[in-house]
Amino acid sequence: MAEFMDVHHGMKDITSEKLREAHNADLAIEGEEGVHFKRAWADPGTGTVYCLSEGPSADAIQRVHERAGHPADEIHPVPITA
Amino acid sequence: MAEFMDVHHGMKDITSEKLREAHNADLAIEGEEGVHFKRAWADPGTGTVYCLSEGPSADAIQRVHERAGHPADEIHPVPITA
Repeated sequence: MAEFMDVHHGMKDITSEKLREAHNADLAIEGEEGVHFKRAWADPGTGTVYCLSEGPSADAIQRVHERAGHPADEIHPVPITA
Repeated sequence: MAEFMDVHHGMKDITSEKLREAHNADLAIEGEEGVHFKRAWADPGTGTVYCLSEGPSADAIQRVHERAGHPADEIHPVPITA
């Protein structure tokens, strides 16, 4: 399993409730792709959302996000951490 | 204290050792700005590094990164999390 950071743009004025709904929509189906979304952070000012996940591939991460209705704009493998 | 996600570009081929060194350079001086760098994730393929921190302001985060020799390209307050 690899770790990924994905980025969503265009989420200006996102609320805590909306982020929670979006995250829950991922959690509800992630198991089908062998993915787990661990954390999400949102900057409502610029409309940027970061999601930290683990899974078998960036494609698997994107399939979950797409099916949940919010495809990522970037997905970065992050094999190096500190 | 607020939470921030900052982004560094141009770190292509960064190694685990280099990320650890950079993170340790932040940790060594962060207290002077009331900042704490919690985690860092690197994608050596695209040269992107994400740092999660907490502190009094984005300026304080940037002052630590600048003094440690690696100013961030973007610093996002992330008041909303899931």
